[in-house]
Amino acid sequence: LLGTAAGGGLPQWNCACVNCQAAREGSIPSRTQSSLAFSADGKHWFLLNASGDLRAQIEAFPALHPDPATLRNSPIQGVLLTNADLDHVLGLFQLREGGPLHVQAPLEVRVAITSALRLSKVLQPYCGVTWHEPPNRFAHLLFPDGTHSGLSYRAIPLPGHPPRFVSRGMLGVDGHSIAYEIADDQTGGTLLVAPDVAAITPALRDSIECADAILFDGTFWKGTELQEVRPGARSAREMDHLPISEGSLAALREAPAQNKIYVHINNTNPILAAASDERTQVEKAGIAVGYDGMEFEI
Amino acid sequence: LLGTAAGGGLPQWNCACVNCQAAREGSIPSRTQSSLAFSADGKHWFLLNASGDLRAQIEAFPALHPDPATLRNSPIQGVLLTNADLDHVLGLFQLREGGPLHVQAPLEVRVAITSALRLSKVLQPYCGVTWHEPPNRFAHLLFPDGTHSGLSYRAIPLPGHPPRFVSRGMLGVDGHSIAYEIADDQTGGTLLVAPDVAAITPALRDSIECADAILFDGTFWKGTELQEVRPGARSAREMDHLPISEGSLAALREAPAQNKIYVHINNTNPILAAASDERTQVEKAGIAVGYDGMEFEI
Repeated sequence: LLGTAAGGGLPQWNCACVNCQAAREGSIPSRTQSSLAFSADGKHWFLLNASGDLRAQIEAFPALHPDPATLRNSPIQGVLLTNADLDHVLGLFQLREGGPLHVQAPLEVRVAITSALRLSKVLQPYCGVTWHEPPNRFAHLLFPDGTHSGLSYRAIPLPGHPPRFVSRGMLGVDGHSIAYEIADDQTGGTLLVAPDVAAITPALRDSIECADAILFDGTFWKGTELQEVRPGARSAREMDHLPISEGSLAALREAPAQNKIYVHINNTNPILAAASDERTQVEKAGIAVGYDGMEFEI
Repeated sequence: LLGTAAGGGLPQWNCACVNCQAAREGSIPSRTQSSLAFSADGKHWFLLNASGDLRAQIEAFPALHPDPATLRNSPIQGVLLTNADLDHVLGLFQLREGGPLHVQAPLEVRVAITSALRLSKVLQPYCGVTWHEPPNRFAHLLFPDGTHSGLSYRAIPLPGHPPRFVSRGMLGVDGHSIAYEIADDQTGGTLLVAPDVAAITPALRDSIECADAILFDGTFWKGTELQEVRPGARSAREMDHLPISEGSLAALREAPAQNKIYVHINNTNPILAAASDERTQVEKAGIAVGYDGMEFEI
């Protein structure tokens, strides 16, 4: 896990809430914004979501450093996006010094990023972007040279709105958010990555019940959490995040996965405090609170 | 100085040059991308350029943290831009959680950022952006509420091209780069900030000879430096950076300023190595190699 916070990170630059202050004082760990890296061989890596903290995240994880044998290179093979939220895509701008950037995203996410953010046009004179659409049925995840990574993957479509920077006329109403299921072809082990979950659909529930490891939307504990810090803010549901206490805790508690981990945790979430009741409830359900630098094998 | 590296930082994610490797090994200090904060009273701060590393830079400098007395706030009053380069503007996206963002930029820089990067439209549903055009003659630098900051400022126009992500038809040929001169109204002390210098114009030379402190373009030591790491790369001149050994070292050597500091230093620049000949030449000329966290008063 390269980063485990929601947009803004922990601490957030303009926030003095109890969690942000505790992180500044060092009494709870700081967290960068949500992103992870995964690999079948430990040498070639894919990123899943790319936050504005990506530069620091790459430096914090030596497996993502270039090979010292040649001057310019990277083990990063591509980036998979779950949606077009700024905290998931701004890091793409930071990869502009390399070769063509291979990005996986559903069509509507791609349209949001290329039209509203002009990302492809901006990056064209630097690295350029090659887009891929993740399949809804398992298929091989390929390296940029077309060879097989040893991993298969599929998208699980989820309900959700486009980010606020996308004008409504630009896009249809579906396809703005997905989860990924990633499988190791050799071991058969599967990872479900679902950092943006507005609702647990039947297909997502099936995946929760089958996956060997689950990284799940831990943005909010309850629906009105952000409004208590910032009056006038939207509710968790309006932001397309199912709160932990209103559905995901119950769904994950029963799941047989060996690793069940909350990620994309907003700075307002009480599970960030080690001594909180909410943290205890999560841990008693067999779910871990993800932290930057956490690693596991499936 | 919040950050002292050119675009990409030190180390750069995909670079294994001698400086990037030394930074990874800890034998020379790492550097985030070019940005600085300045203040007349130590309480209200302006940023000058906003790189993608801004989140980490704010956390590394406690004076920029919010006041714990209220939940959401920031001592950051606005951002001054010298040009539209991605490594100077991507940080603006990271300030979206706050109130309206006050940005100072010449008209052509503003047009580049709003048209090619759509920054104003993207940020509109979050914080919104209020644009200001820096004057060519000294004027008061104002806080967002219209009161006087205690500082005056002016732009010094410089030659230079728009960044590569701007299509040529979009803009004229002038106005894409400026330096800033900032004066403390109480002490009269002046700071020249010039991280993007294609050529030392007569007006810039006048400022070099009068300023009490100078932060200057230290991107490259020599013109072909980047090409040696990445064949096919542009020369320093083509990138609108006057190399240190081809003009700025001589110009700064004679300047009477108390603080003469190179900033915006590319990872290829040999002045980054403490034992290099080039570093010795810079220090013998009375010029410091800026580092992240460096502070001074005028």
